[in-house]
Amino acid sequence: MKLLEERILKEGTVIGNEVLKVDHFLNHQIDPVLMQAIGKEFARLFEGLGINKIITIESSGIAPAVFAGLEMGIPVIFARKHKSLTLTDNLYSSTVYSFTKKVSNEIAVSKQFLSQDDHVLLIDDFLANGQAAVGLIDICKQAGAHISGVGIVIEKSFQKGRALVEEQQIKIESLARIASFKDNQVVFVEE
Amino acid sequence: MKLLEERILKEGTVIGNEVLKVDHFLNHQIDPVLMQAIGKEFARLFEGLGINKIITIESSGIAPAVFAGLEMGIPVIFARKHKSLTLTDNLYSSTVYSFTKKVSNEIAVSKQFLSQDDHVLLIDDFLANGQAAVGLIDICKQAGAHISGVGIVIEKSFQKGRALVEEQQIKIESLARIASFKDNQVVFVEE
Repeated sequence: MKLLEERILKEGTVIGNEVLKVDHFLNHQIDPVLMQAIGKEFARLFEGLGINKIITIESSGIAPAVFAGLEMGIPVIFARKHKSLTLTDNLYSSTVYSFTKKVSNEIAVSKQFLSQDDHVLLIDDFLANGQAAVGLIDICKQAGAHISGVGIVIEKSFQKGRALVEEQQIKIESLARIASFKDNQVVFVEE
Repeated sequence: MKLLEERILKEGTVIGNEVLKVDHFLNHQIDPVLMQAIGKEFARLFEGLGINKIITIESSGIAPAVFAGLEMGIPVIFARKHKSLTLTDNLYSSTVYSFTKKVSNEIAVSKQFLSQDDHVLLIDDFLANGQAAVGLIDICKQAGAHISGVGIVIEKSFQKGRALVEEQQIKIESLARIASFKDNQVVFVEE
């Protein structure tokens, strides 16, 4: 997605060899106009698959997911990473290991919002080692829901996340695919 | 806002005397169509005040805030409650005490996204004891930013949050105002 790649080049900051900071429009400050365009692009890419629900994970997945949900006319569930006062029982949960933070987090979704009747699109802001995606897929499988696709805003294609999704025969679309960070510059995957 | 009150009556669950669970459309599953309507209503209520930025707090404030941001054509910043790998220094921060969870959390916003030139609308999903709102107001004041208003999706009017905002002479608009939970039923403030 050209608009997104341009914003990454203009406003993203590369830290070391692995971290891309996009706090200007996605992870801390959010550009709603860009998020709407992203939501429309996800809707286009996953059209005609009978998808009736989107699942994402707090917090940075929420903005792209709700605009996709509006465009597709379907609800969005966000998995919680942290204990909530009102989300306490009847949960599907999975453990997600963060390589960057070196901690494991439990993620959870209430059982009342996912069932075997659902055809789910999974949306997240980043895909790197794929641990969050695998955790969300695990939760969908516990519910017996069909996973119709995975939509990612920014994929670090030099890490293993995409392979982990593809080996489960799940359609995956990433709006920006990063091949490498070379001399602190973002290099996109050539199409 | 009639549409919102109807959804609260239809899908909200009252727990005890103080907790309203709205996991069906706001705090866990999100209804993007309702969120868009909420965003438009905030834009209408705070029109003409020269607002150039929205601030909210993760996670449940994000959906209403991004739709308001789209409608108003301005960016949204979400304060982080939890430490982030890429949000580490140059922060405005404040301590927010949660009466329900009985813990204090540090919330933080990067200094690069707030300044004395900003006219800020603060948006959040709930207002009860007002601690999150006061924390966000504190952060705006540290930046020297002007706080143009506070927009709340659901206000528990029997708690002190609204008074804490009003005593600072800040305009506040809540889309649903709850007078009490009587016999596990929601009673709205009469207009």
